[in-house]
Amino acid sequence: MKDYAQLTKEELLAEKEKVEKVYKDYQAKGLKLDMSRGKPSPSQHDKCMPILDALSSKDDYHASNGFDVRNYGLVDGIPDAKELMAEMMDTRPENIILGGNASLNLMYDCVCRGYCFGIMGSTPWHKLDKVKFLCPVPGYDRHFGVTEQFGIEMINIPMNEDGPDMDMVEKYVNNDDAVKGIWCVPKFSNPGGVVYSDEVVRRFANLQPAAKDFRIYWDNAYVVHYLYDEEIKILDIISECEKAGNPDMVYEFASTSKISFAGAGISAMATSQANIEDIKKSLTKQTIGPDKVNQLRHVRYFKDLNGILDHMKLMAEDLRPRFELVCKTLDEELSGLGVGTFTNPKGGYFIMYTTLPGCATRVIELCKEAGVVMTGAGAPFPYHKDPEDSTIRISPSYPSIEDLGKAAKVFTVCVKLATIEHLLGENNG
Amino acid sequence: MKDYAQLTKEELLAEKEKVEKVYKDYQAKGLKLDMSRGKPSPSQHDKCMPILDALSSKDDYHASNGFDVRNYGLVDGIPDAKELMAEMMDTRPENIILGGNASLNLMYDCVCRGYCFGIMGSTPWHKLDKVKFLCPVPGYDRHFGVTEQFGIEMINIPMNEDGPDMDMVEKYVNNDDAVKGIWCVPKFSNPGGVVYSDEVVRRFANLQPAAKDFRIYWDNAYVVHYLYDEEIKILDIISECEKAGNPDMVYEFASTSKISFAGAGISAMATSQANIEDIKKSLTKQTIGPDKVNQLRHVRYFKDLNGILDHMKLMAEDLRPRFELVCKTLDEELSGLGVGTFTNPKGGYFIMYTTLPGCATRVIELCKEAGVVMTGAGAPFPYHKDPEDSTIRISPSYPSIEDLGKAAKVFTVCVKLATIEHLLGENNG
Repeated sequence: MKDYAQLTKEELLAEKEKVEKVYKDYQAKGLKLDMSRGKPSPSQHDKCMPILDALSSKDDYHASNGFDVRNYGLVDGIPDAKELMAEMMDTRPENIILGGNASLNLMYDCVCRGYCFGIMGSTPWHKLDKVKFLCPVPGYDRHFGVTEQFGIEMINIPMNEDGPDMDMVEKYVNNDDAVKGIWCVPKFSNPGGVVYSDEVVRRFANLQPAAKDFRIYWDNAYVVHYLYDEEIKILDIISECEKAGNPDMVYEFASTSKISFAGAGISAMATSQANIEDIKKSLTKQTIGPDKVNQLRHVRYFKDLNGILDHMKLMAEDLRPRFELVCKTLDEELSGLGVGTFTNPKGGYFIMYTTLPGCATRVIELCKEAGVVMTGAGAPFPYHKDPEDSTIRISPSYPSIEDLGKAAKVFTVCVKLATIEHLLGENNG
Repeated sequence: MKDYAQLTKEELLAEKEKVEKVYKDYQAKGLKLDMSRGKPSPSQHDKCMPILDALSSKDDYHASNGFDVRNYGLVDGIPDAKELMAEMMDTRPENIILGGNASLNLMYDCVCRGYCFGIMGSTPWHKLDKVKFLCPVPGYDRHFGVTEQFGIEMINIPMNEDGPDMDMVEKYVNNDDAVKGIWCVPKFSNPGGVVYSDEVVRRFANLQPAAKDFRIYWDNAYVVHYLYDEEIKILDIISECEKAGNPDMVYEFASTSKISFAGAGISAMATSQANIEDIKKSLTKQTIGPDKVNQLRHVRYFKDLNGILDHMKLMAEDLRPRFELVCKTLDEELSGLGVGTFTNPKGGYFIMYTTLPGCATRVIELCKEAGVVMTGAGAPFPYHKDPEDSTIRISPSYPSIEDLGKAAKVFTVCVKLATIEHLLGENNG
């Protein structure tokens, strides 16, 4: 097949007719498929079930420091779980505050504290005329949801293959004291699958923020989420910040949500001692502490980083064929047509498809009308506005292989159809 | 023994010498005892251990609506757990939002949302010159900690035997639109053990707040926490508010923290549909939802309110002898001396001791110097200021019977000594 852009109008119309017929056949099937959210599949969770047995009524219920995990206390969690999460996050246990089942909540709370009380004695953000966050795009919709909720202005930062455009990041952070944060997913970024290079991490660590209360919100959500045996390392941002004389500049986050149970894992943030002290001042007012029984359950099951990595190989056995099936389908159906490009990540939870500019919304709409739910157009951008209307996040993790095969096929048909419409000038309204 | 106030100076000095000798003997023992926090004892928690087995790898992991509790979703929790908590809180499942392991965090979040975003479209509190909360005293230190954290002015409301002074509550709430809330523990209040009468609950429900965003923060923390077979009921504030035409005026809170594991229970708030919709707007930004695995675990173990009540009888078997031992000791050692009064509650977690005015701080100090940690003086009051310096919260739940016997004895000696010093004019500095 030739590149669509090279076709004459007649050829395009003929192709359209063919594609439309296929599309209508799919529509007639009454499919109900979903590639919209980065959820583990039931079969992944089946492999997590022994976690439930890792702390039974017959087991010892004391943390390594002798603390009875059943009772109140330890607002920042048990030492054993700090060790486990620190090892996973490539940092030290004393840098860790443990949270509940959702690292998103830890991030929300950090932003909320900045808004209500200020960070380390700085002016609370609600008293400032303007607060801005930098948002490397495409990025994670829930990050942008948090900053939008607090009325924070979000500024798009383009992503390169090795991380955000650092020239632009430096320009903003080092000159504008209204810039209080940047959202980062440094490893297998959501949705682009980008892994930050050492140079990018070092440039982050060497920022010279105009605002004392600027923090890097470093969401290491996919820190051990490999699809293949190849372990991909990034530099530890906390020690790089220390080396650069910016020890307090980063809040790092992670959780076991896509390691153990998505809705019932444990979360952690890692940061400097000074930040921890600052955070604990309000944390002690907010809660009696996270669920330490669940922390100990995770420690007993995983034991250490090796335990986590072994478990992640089991998870990859479920994920890998799904990613490969989608990529194979995209390749077989679309390559050579000039209808877009897609990522082929080595970890994380997403494939990103980039259509011709102006086609993403229509592709997603066509998918929906054929019974395939995709993440909403614009979701990976602040205010849901994709300036190019070209980014589509594909989540292959949840559906069964059979459903996924169908969904991917439907998707390719929708990409073809939307692109043809676009080239014919039909979807410019 | 005669009332201390009737003794001559010489008799008092002689008594002081005797009491001091006993005190020093206790000091010499190097005790390390704690009656400071309302924590369940290890033996109570031992009886909760089967909860850990209520959801194992062999069990079905679906909620009653078929939802897989392991995965993301259901930001307000699973329907089965809503039913359980609704039955316990004497309300309807549709009024329930489930939280994480700490109801304190639910309360904090409610205050925080009022501060950041406003309640149902009202002006966010951070934009107002003055926000006030009414605080029935003595009350729960952690409630006051939350409001203090947000710079909210706290106003003491005296407690009567059947609840707060409602004349004063009505005067403030109905006339001052800066009054946005009142903290209530309506059943077995912390620390006074007060149970709100039907009349008090109805007067609450019939408030005519000057502020549209006034809410009653109704912390039903001890809703099923009976020490004896006698079940003590209070009116359901939510339906009373509905009847009074004030359906949105109350946020009710409860948790299983002193039912299952103190640090690993489930929490809930109950409120009107309109409030739930308002709350969900920001809740969906804040979290992917609470730990539904733990919710299902609790449902499987307790099944329904009867299951909870049966379990609470087991808890009472541990608690009752502790309460009775402390009350017996106080009675035997102090009655007739005119050195104070104490409560003898039928539920909850605390005994309240009221010293002569001006003696509480000194009693607690003497206890500390003899190795017995008590809740800090002033803790049950906003800003830690007990205007009479007479309220002491005794928490009998945690220590072993043996330790508790010693601790209670030491406490009575300290009460005697502080009172004598007071009557001799020695501790007025």
